[in-house]
Amino acid sequence: MYKSTHHAIAGAHLHADGKCLFRIWAPLKQTVALHIVSPEERRIPLTRSTDGYFETEVADCPAATHYYFNPDGEGDFPDPASHFQPEGVHGPSAVVDHGTFTWSDQAWENPALSELILYELHVGTFTEAGTFDAIIPYLEDLAAMGINAIELMPVAQFPGHRNWGYDGTFPYAVHASYGGPDGLKRLVDACHRRGIAVILDVVYNHLGPEGNYFNAFAPYFTDAYRTPWGSALNFDGPWSDGVRDYFTANAIHWFHHYHIDGLRLDAIHAIIDTGATHALQYINEVVASYAQQARKPLHLIAESDLNAPRVIQSTKTNGYGFDAQWLDDFHHALFVLLYPVGKEQYEDFGTLAQLAKAYTEGFVHSGEYVSARQRKYGASSAGIPGFKFVAFIQNHDQVGNHKNGERLSVLLSGAQLRIAAAALLLSPYIPMLFMGEEYGEERPFLYFTSHDDPQLVEQIREGRRQEFAHFFGDGEPPDPQDEKTFKASILDWPKRGQGKYQQLLMWYQRLIHLRRTHTALHNFNKTGTEVDVLSESAWSL
Amino acid sequence: MYKSTHHAIAGAHLHADGKCLFRIWAPLKQTVALHIVSPEERRIPLTRSTDGYFETEVADCPAATHYYFNPDGEGDFPDPASHFQPEGVHGPSAVVDHGTFTWSDQAWENPALSELILYELHVGTFTEAGTFDAIIPYLEDLAAMGINAIELMPVAQFPGHRNWGYDGTFPYAVHASYGGPDGLKRLVDACHRRGIAVILDVVYNHLGPEGNYFNAFAPYFTDAYRTPWGSALNFDGPWSDGVRDYFTANAIHWFHHYHIDGLRLDAIHAIIDTGATHALQYINEVVASYAQQARKPLHLIAESDLNAPRVIQSTKTNGYGFDAQWLDDFHHALFVLLYPVGKEQYEDFGTLAQLAKAYTEGFVHSGEYVSARQRKYGASSAGIPGFKFVAFIQNHDQVGNHKNGERLSVLLSGAQLRIAAAALLLSPYIPMLFMGEEYGEERPFLYFTSHDDPQLVEQIREGRRQEFAHFFGDGEPPDPQDEKTFKASILDWPKRGQGKYQQLLMWYQRLIHLRRTHTALHNFNKTGTEVDVLSESAWSL
Repeated sequence: MYKSTHHAIAGAHLHADGKCLFRIWAPLKQTVALHIVSPEERRIPLTRSTDGYFETEVADCPAATHYYFNPDGEGDFPDPASHFQPEGVHGPSAVVDHGTFTWSDQAWENPALSELILYELHVGTFTEAGTFDAIIPYLEDLAAMGINAIELMPVAQFPGHRNWGYDGTFPYAVHASYGGPDGLKRLVDACHRRGIAVILDVVYNHLGPEGNYFNAFAPYFTDAYRTPWGSALNFDGPWSDGVRDYFTANAIHWFHHYHIDGLRLDAIHAIIDTGATHALQYINEVVASYAQQARKPLHLIAESDLNAPRVIQSTKTNGYGFDAQWLDDFHHALFVLLYPVGKEQYEDFGTLAQLAKAYTEGFVHSGEYVSARQRKYGASSAGIPGFKFVAFIQNHDQVGNHKNGERLSVLLSGAQLRIAAAALLLSPYIPMLFMGEEYGEERPFLYFTSHDDPQLVEQIREGRRQEFAHFFGDGEPPDPQDEKTFKASILDWPKRGQGKYQQLLMWYQRLIHLRRTHTALHNFNKTGTEVDVLSESAWSL
Repeated sequence: MYKSTHHAIAGAHLHADGKCLFRIWAPLKQTVALHIVSPEERRIPLTRSTDGYFETEVADCPAATHYYFNPDGEGDFPDPASHFQPEGVHGPSAVVDHGTFTWSDQAWENPALSELILYELHVGTFTEAGTFDAIIPYLEDLAAMGINAIELMPVAQFPGHRNWGYDGTFPYAVHASYGGPDGLKRLVDACHRRGIAVILDVVYNHLGPEGNYFNAFAPYFTDAYRTPWGSALNFDGPWSDGVRDYFTANAIHWFHHYHIDGLRLDAIHAIIDTGATHALQYINEVVASYAQQARKPLHLIAESDLNAPRVIQSTKTNGYGFDAQWLDDFHHALFVLLYPVGKEQYEDFGTLAQLAKAYTEGFVHSGEYVSARQRKYGASSAGIPGFKFVAFIQNHDQVGNHKNGERLSVLLSGAQLRIAAAALLLSPYIPMLFMGEEYGEERPFLYFTSHDDPQLVEQIREGRRQEFAHFFGDGEPPDPQDEKTFKASILDWPKRGQGKYQQLLMWYQRLIHLRRTHTALHNFNKTGTEVDVLSESAWSL
């Protein structure tokens, strides 16, 4: 077990001697009981320790022991820091033995972030089987085309079997139907043996609505701020220390137990903290200190809708200290140029000068008035090195938020796809592909769920309808809850060996090879990037 | 009229040629009409200009013209950027001619902030008359004891005649019963002639509940955040540009029209802005650029409950860029040592080591767990020069938030008062006295209001009761709405020439003289300050 010098770590921690330490944060509760439901039913009162935690050590507690916590006798609830929910979000938590997996990645060295060619991947739809294990046979193909990092969409336990992963409610648990903890370890180990790093998408800005038992234990939420998904997590109010530590320890959890090489933090703009040390600064500082101790680089990448340089600036200058952030503006600028209908969705984009700015500065909106936001937005990122940004021409969000989940491959011509690929792979940024992009997969990537709660299902349907009410023409978007919507989104991998698909794949492969072998094409000095806009329809890089 | 290069300035701007420009921000309105009610009734439609502003220029518009704005025909409302509300918060706005006042302060040079000995003053209770003019005869006394800056509690128009000023609803208007715009100008001019700078307390974190017509015009408020006083002002959402510019131009308004030397921004922790450029950073940058243009130093001081160094750090390193901030921890540390009952209110204070830290670092709470806040709080200010902090042993809040408005003079012995004065005036911080402190005024400084709305009056009474429910013993706090409460708070100035009052006054005078004449006692290098804690009841500086 990793011992933090910063904070207590919640959850069930099984030691080599068979003893398991159970720890839960419940600062306002008088009692917490551990209810072991199998293999042998037991009820054990926890002891109050420091900082609002309760804990107990249980001898002879085998892996896969199923348990609940019962705060103040109010009922059995799964552990918010559960490592495994074998029966889903409503079932018991299971003790995981992290000591039994045999790692074979001793030779693995995580490259610098600037060396990576990222590949965003959704476990459920990458293969028919939708598991971690099913991905492994394809790693060779990815490595062959030059991919050296996969970025997994969230794998934390979410309700049901089909979900993008952003509505998870057990941020420490590896989704059971993906293959659970051991499945993820097998995938990471296989990646490392093939020279592929693994970045994991984690959600620290909200918790999903279904299977959310957090309020049963502690004040994880605050009324002081609102997010697009309801009450904000409590990162700066009374009792926020436990919330900050819960998510900070979560980051370490993935590095420590799963050999993850980096995290992509979802929508960090919805993590509101007005205190002296922003929660994100705290997480970055703790991870940096852990990385130093572990003697390996560990990457933290932010998804940020702020266009704020502080996100990627040093914590020494009041920045959050992320290693890099997603550069949405690059996508928007390029997309609307190639697909003018896209202006319905990205109304403030559409000029070549903006694409040139995306190349030479980064943020296209750096303080000017932006119609879609009805205010002045962003600050300049000129002068910030290119390796602080991840660029892409499509990702899960942009594809999935087209009404019919259209990828670029069905919106653009073959020539345009090749231009877009070159625009990305020769850019002064860390490039990221979205699974299937490399061979022009035409199957959609749709929004899908499999919630139990009928009211929630209807809310989500209605939300999708409203989202598309203003653009992309008439007609209903596909039903997220319908299994067909999910099935339609599964990649058709064999295509990549055929005809135009193969040609595009070879184009990507060649561009990646060029990028990785030519210093000038692997240049993160944006100020050294010259963009000549030849006319409103022609430019050279 | 000061012309901003940054933003349009709302309000009525009377030019030398007798023309008056009326401008109002109402981005979601279709029409706005100007309704002049005197001297001659006129209704004039405004023209939509840029950025959501409406404006019109009216010829032959004398000073004191009374007017309302009527947005979308929804009714007459006073101007949110009114410079004068002669009939109070519910009456018409009045045009002010800023060109007629004859300034005689041409020789005045605003000293560096580090040179100042501040004196906090409430206009309504400093004298029986409660006006700006009534203060002028006392300036000589203040100057004689070494005060070279008064800090006026808010003078913006508030409801009724008695109020601390923090519930103002016309941030640009000078309170009518204090003497209105010309009264303030006479006071500032008189101060400058006597070598006294004027700092003005302004409230940019909320607007009072009574006489608040802001929602009639524009989305000044947001539901995204909550403050202790209800809905937060909209500094970062859609349409926030107008709100940011409204308050930024307000800062310039005081410097430009009233020759104010610095502003103290109330409770900046309640100004929530998660955007790329925090509203406070924006205000500091605009003021710095105005100060450069005007070729004079202008001070911005924050009241901050964050214990966050970023408040006083440079905008170049993602700080807010304030020149200084109030150092509440210094007060709390000293107060509880001198008055142990104070621990009821400041439960996390009470050791000499904390006072030593207040001297050598600044923030006493710099990241440790604080019981009163139920979380870890603050970050270290070690190494930040002392001139970035304003220290005090009592201010309007701390006195007024004792149940019976008790000043130190009634809580401490004469010897203790002298120790406290020395602890402040020999500190490595900019010292601030609260009016009457210098001679040990024993009259209280109570919380008082004179609202019209009976429901609001009852809410405030109940709020005070709850505030004191947990400490300072039993019994009702004085009724804020009762005029006696206000009257009881008026200084008894003649006392300062008598007996123990005079002795204390001379002690203050001597300490200030020592501070101003001895380099070693005028030292803002905290690291050069050695504090020896001799025992838990003795220390030397």
